[in-house]
Amino acid sequence: MTSDAAGERGFIEALRALAHDPAARRLTDDAAVLPMPAAESLVLTHDMLVAGVHFLPTDPPGDVAWKLLAVNLSDLAAKGARPVGVLMGYGLTGDAAWDSAFVAGLGAALAAFAVPLLGGDTVAQPAGDSRVLGLTALGANGAVVPSRGGARAGDSLYVTGTIGDAGAGLAIARGEHGAADLLAAYRRPQPRLAEGGALAPLVHAMMDVSDGLLIDAERMAAASGLAVEIDLATIPLSDALRARGADRPARLAAATAGDDYELLFALPPGMLPPVAATRVGRFATGAGLTLVDGDAAVPLPARLGYLHAG
Amino acid sequence: MTSDAAGERGFIEALRALAHDPAARRLTDDAAVLPMPAAESLVLTHDMLVAGVHFLPTDPPGDVAWKLLAVNLSDLAAKGARPVGVLMGYGLTGDAAWDSAFVAGLGAALAAFAVPLLGGDTVAQPAGDSRVLGLTALGANGAVVPSRGGARAGDSLYVTGTIGDAGAGLAIARGEHGAADLLAAYRRPQPRLAEGGALAPLVHAMMDVSDGLLIDAERMAAASGLAVEIDLATIPLSDALRARGADRPARLAAATAGDDYELLFALPPGMLPPVAATRVGRFATGAGLTLVDGDAAVPLPARLGYLHAG
Repeated sequence: MTSDAAGERGFIEALRALAHDPAARRLTDDAAVLPMPAAESLVLTHDMLVAGVHFLPTDPPGDVAWKLLAVNLSDLAAKGARPVGVLMGYGLTGDAAWDSAFVAGLGAALAAFAVPLLGGDTVAQPAGDSRVLGLTALGANGAVVPSRGGARAGDSLYVTGTIGDAGAGLAIARGEHGAADLLAAYRRPQPRLAEGGALAPLVHAMMDVSDGLLIDAERMAAASGLAVEIDLATIPLSDALRARGADRPARLAAATAGDDYELLFALPPGMLPPVAATRVGRFATGAGLTLVDGDAAVPLPARLGYLHAG
Repeated sequence: MTSDAAGERGFIEALRALAHDPAARRLTDDAAVLPMPAAESLVLTHDMLVAGVHFLPTDPPGDVAWKLLAVNLSDLAAKGARPVGVLMGYGLTGDAAWDSAFVAGLGAALAAFAVPLLGGDTVAQPAGDSRVLGLTALGANGAVVPSRGGARAGDSLYVTGTIGDAGAGLAIARGEHGAADLLAAYRRPQPRLAEGGALAPLVHAMMDVSDGLLIDAERMAAASGLAVEIDLATIPLSDALRARGADRPARLAAATAGDDYELLFALPPGMLPPVAATRVGRFATGAGLTLVDGDAAVPLPARLGYLHAG
């Protein structure tokens, strides 16, 4: 953990109070030093959030901290890994109140997932620039680490939880009226760590749904060299989302909204998932994504998932 | 490796060509998956570079890529670790030529240090914002991992290489006339990986010189609960730097300039370092930094090291 300017000292002191794992070396050394258990795979991911692109400037700082951690832990969950630590890159933009609220939220999020903060860097961005945050998460998996590309023809496509809540939550965060549960789904996603660990030894392929169910399912099919058919009628919707409408356009919106952070996985025929999940489709030989709604064929929407504005 | 907008595709394709290690999963999975050798310590660091703060907008992009990698590898070197991989966080700011040159330089730097690119994230920053880059480096060390805080009274303080070249190089990059070797020291620092590996089992404390010899030596003394005395007359200067002057103000400037990325270490009395290094001081009971210049006491300068402009 290195530092830049004098104004950062308070922020770094606050971070230090969170970094109580011995591996963090109190953020005062050049690097974190972590004993590794023998014969495990290390699972590594790094995701960034940019203000105005990946979160709203009006989102509460504690929720942004939660999201920064959660989206990275979701990648670990998708590989069946248990988190062993994180390193954070933090851009200071001269808003000390925001920074303080962020650190408090980060502490709560780290505690909620029992993940140690091991290190990172804090830098000053030029005045007026949008804040950039980065997080590297490390996980360990002592068994099979599923890929996106292992689905086989005949496998069922399953998804955990419900889809589309975060998409509606984003609209609510932008000012629409709506349920608090949906807003929470957008601001406080819940990485499926326990489910990922239970599923990893059983699935043929697994990934998290970050950009939208349809685009992510298509990516899994492409990585596996297969076609996938999804039945819109089976996509699991929460009661709060159904209350906003569940007709075909609403279900298409849910399936393309992104930010769900549920697990999408391919399971061999005849096997039932050991965690709560819904069968939404199946893999077949061929290529590409096909949509149906019960018995009716549905043309693919122009946009299969969320692409962040640049 | 996730992506944002369509304009990023070419950049990510170019990165993919660099990510040939199987652990990278071709940057198409949620995470990198790295088999870990048994019973080694994992050494982790994350440093960021911000345009206009840590590098000049006029610095060649390939040199910025080199520096982003080198400053992180220098942290691994300071802990005696061999690099096993990196994850990069990259902010796109709409300058495709800069991005292309950066990727080419990154490829060359990764090859020069034989380090695999394992993953990361690419995000679009808002138009006009200064580019933010982050890199996480992972190293492994099967033996002792030195800290900053292990120096003992009576230990000698050593430093590898020469000090102050990068500080002069920064002045040259900003327009002063000067030697190409000095400019190269600023733009293409050489992490002391081999030296760090050889030194780690022998030293009582070790760190890299990133912010300046004086401030970093003071940090090592403070972490060790000791005083340290440095003799300005012994600070190793390159011939190119000496040609610009080697009087006391020049040597003080060299010792406070930063960006050297040499290794600073505490060695027990009577032991000689197994790599080229210069004895510049010694530790004693007490606290704080004392400067001498041969026989003359020297007052501490107001600024012991480089603090980046915010």
